[in-house]
This record gives sequence, C-alpha cells and structure tokens, in this order.
Amino acid sequence: MREVFHQSLEDVQSRLVEISELVTTAIEKATTAFGTSDVTLAEEVIDADAIIDEKAIELDELAIEILARQSPVARDLRVVVSALRISASLERMGDIAEHIAQLTRMRFPERAIPKGLKSTFTQMGQLDVEVARKLTELLRTQDLEIAEELRNTDDKIDDLHVSVFEKVLSDSWQGETAATVDATLASRYHERFADHAVSISKKVAYLATGDWTTDSDDTFVAHGVTSTS
Amino acid sequence: MREVFHQSLEDVQSRLVEISELVTTAIEKATTAFGTSDVTLAEEVIDADAIIDEKAIELDELAIEILARQSPVARDLRVVVSALRISASLERMGDIAEHIAQLTRMRFPERAIPKGLKSTFTQMGQLDVEVARKLTELLRTQDLEIAEELRNTDDKIDDLHVSVFEKVLSDSWQGETAATVDATLASRYHERFADHAVSISKKVAYLATGDWTTDSDDTFVAHGVTSTS
Repeated sequence: MREVFHQSLEDVQSRLVEISELVTTAIEKATTAFGTSDVTLAEEVIDADAIIDEKAIELDELAIEILARQSPVARDLRVVVSALRISASLERMGDIAEHIAQLTRMRFPERAIPKGLKSTFTQMGQLDVEVARKLTELLRTQDLEIAEELRNTDDKIDDLHVSVFEKVLSDSWQGETAATVDATLASRYHERFADHAVSISKKVAYLATGDWTTDSDDTFVAHGVTSTS
Repeated sequence: MREVFHQSLEDVQSRLVEISELVTTAIEKATTAFGTSDVTLAEEVIDADAIIDEKAIELDELAIEILARQSPVARDLRVVVSALRISASLERMGDIAEHIAQLTRMRFPERAIPKGLKSTFTQMGQLDVEVARKLTELLRTQDLEIAEELRNTDDKIDDLHVSVFEKVLSDSWQGETAATVDATLASRYHERFADHAVSISKKVAYLATGDWTTDSDDTFVAHGVTSTS
C-alpha cells in the first residue's frame, strides 16, 4: 500500500516535470516565432496549448484521487497540495506562451516586434526560455539553489520590462499606436511568464520549509514615472 | 467528530465569502479612484491588499489542516480542494484591483483615464464591481444561475475591452503614447479581473458536478484586426 502510494507521488512529480517541459517548448517556439514572424511556428504553439491544458487537468485529477484514497499527511500532503497549485501556474504559463504566439499571428505578415525593440524582446524571450528550463530543473531536482537563480533571471526580465516602457515613452519613440499597444502587451506577457515561474519556485520551497506564500509576484511597474525622470 | 468537521467546512466557505467581500470593496474603491483620480482612495486599496493576501494564506492553511486531520472524501474533498484554488484566484483579483489603484496613483494629479475613454472605463469599472458582487453571492449561495449571469457580465466586459483597442487604434485617437500604454494596461486589468471571477464560477460548478476545468478563461483579443476591418 505504501509502495503504491509513493509510486503515485513520484507520478505526480514526473507529470509536473513533463508539463514544465511542454511549457518550455511552448515558450521557445513562441518567442522564436515572435522574433522571426514565423506564423507556422506560432500556430504550432497555439495548437499545442490544448495538450498542456489536458495534462494539467489529468494531473489535478490524479492529485485529488491521491487525496481521496491515500489521505496523505505531513510532507506527502504538501507535495500533493503544491502539485495542484503548481499545475495551475504551469497552465497559465502555457496560456501566456500562446498569447505571444497569437500576437505574432495577428500581425503577420507584418513584424510583431515594434521597431526599436527587437533586441530588448530578443533578450526577454531568451530569458523567459531560461526561466522555463530552470523551472523544469527545479521541479526535477527540488534544488532550491535553482530557485534563487530563477529569481535573479526574473529580476533581469523585470528590468527589461521597465526598459520597454522607457523606450516607448521616450522622445525618440516613433512607433504608431498599434506598435505601442503591441509593445505594452508583449512586454507584460513576457514579464508575467517569469512571475509565474517565481511563484512556482516558492511553492517548491514550501515543500522544503512548510511556509506557504500567496501568488503575489506581480510587481506593478510604474511605467509613467521613468520617462519623466 | 463529524460535527467539528462540518463546522470546519462551513468555516472554509464563510472565509471565501469574506475574502470575496474584501475583493469587492477593493474593486469598488479602485475603479472609483481610477475614475475620479482620487489618490487617497487609491492608497487605501493598495494598503488593504495585504489583508486580502493574509486572509488567503489563512484560508489555505485551514484547508490544508482539514486535509491532514479529517481526510475528507467525495464532495467534502472537492469543497476543500476548490477552496484552495478559489482563494488563489481571489487573491489575484485583489492584486488586479491594486494595479488599477496603482495606475491612478502613478498618474496623479493627472487623470489616469485617457481622454475619450472615460465612459468606456466607467462602464468597465461598474461591470467589474457587478462581477465581484455576483461572485460573492455565488460563493454564499452556490446558486449556479448566478454563475451564468456572471459569464454574461464578463462577455460585456470583453466587448468593452475590444472597444478600447478599436478606439485607441482609430484615426480619431489623439492620445499620447503614455495614454495608449495606460489604456492598454487598464483595459487588460479590468478584463482579467472578470476572467478570474469566471474561473472561480467554474470551480463552484465543479462542486456541483465533479467536472474539473482549467483556468483558461483568458481569451486573446485580436486588437490589431478590429481597427482595419
């Protein structure tokens, strides 16, 4: 009985890693498609999001079944409860990758990245991919040092997010209104993607420490202040 | 023992209602502050968000304690698992109300609502408040007809969200870049607030039906297409 149970817990963990890998592929493709206006690649991301959603539901069902049948306590209970929360965040990360792909498709055959922001969004995209890879590694190993690295990468993304607003609000910005809207939404998506990863990393830390935190990793960027300072 | 248990479940439900009431107050104040450039009111919302976060953590701790001590099954288990998920969404709704307040504070003493969008954002604000009130009622009564009403209100908010982009991307738009950024972010916040309520309403439906869904209520708005059609 205990063996079956630990088999189930391992199954939960390996499914989280699997979903995180799918999310990593999604953000890799989405940011590449965004950077190269590759609408075929964008479509792939959009189509594949349903798989992430399905895997997340399956994982939730498994977690609830474990709660019902095995009545875990202590650390085992924390593993299962965390899995429920982590799957919700992974699913949101998949949605955000999809949104970046949708921006690409919407602008096609025009470029989705507004002029003057190519290098910024290339960096943000690469950092989002880095975040997704680190997250997968963290879920695989539970190594909290990776959580720390992940937060550092998130800080870099936040800085780039601020720099998008600085650029857009500077005198040199010559983008049309549509470019301003695109830059605003795309930057927000890239930033939120990483926020969710940080939020997951805190849930992994909870497994180690028992300290619960909320999802409040969404720092407000005072985008209007930087331009006038 | 069973009596103590049902007491706990009622406690879970009444805490969800309490947090939803706090979120309702937050969005009422935030949208009012946004519409009237009332920075004092905005500060109140920003300060009060910590209380929502705290209440959400307390509720999660209670839910986890119930799982550990009572090992609920069947519907009782669904109540507890749903509560964990609903508290996460309520907490996010509080964050979004805070973001609307932060936009207000950032622009003060200027108006946060860009010219030409006053009536649109007034309507969106009122509908967000309506959504929050319906959500509280839904959590109190579990009446799924309210869930249906809530989705209808969300549809109206989605339409207004699209209309913001139509306005901003029309030839008549004379807003500066900062106004475009503000309109984009503010509209996205108002829309996401309602999305989370819809997502919660599905979790309440799960209590009745046992059908689990994911959080994918975030429809991508093709903001670039509408302007050229």
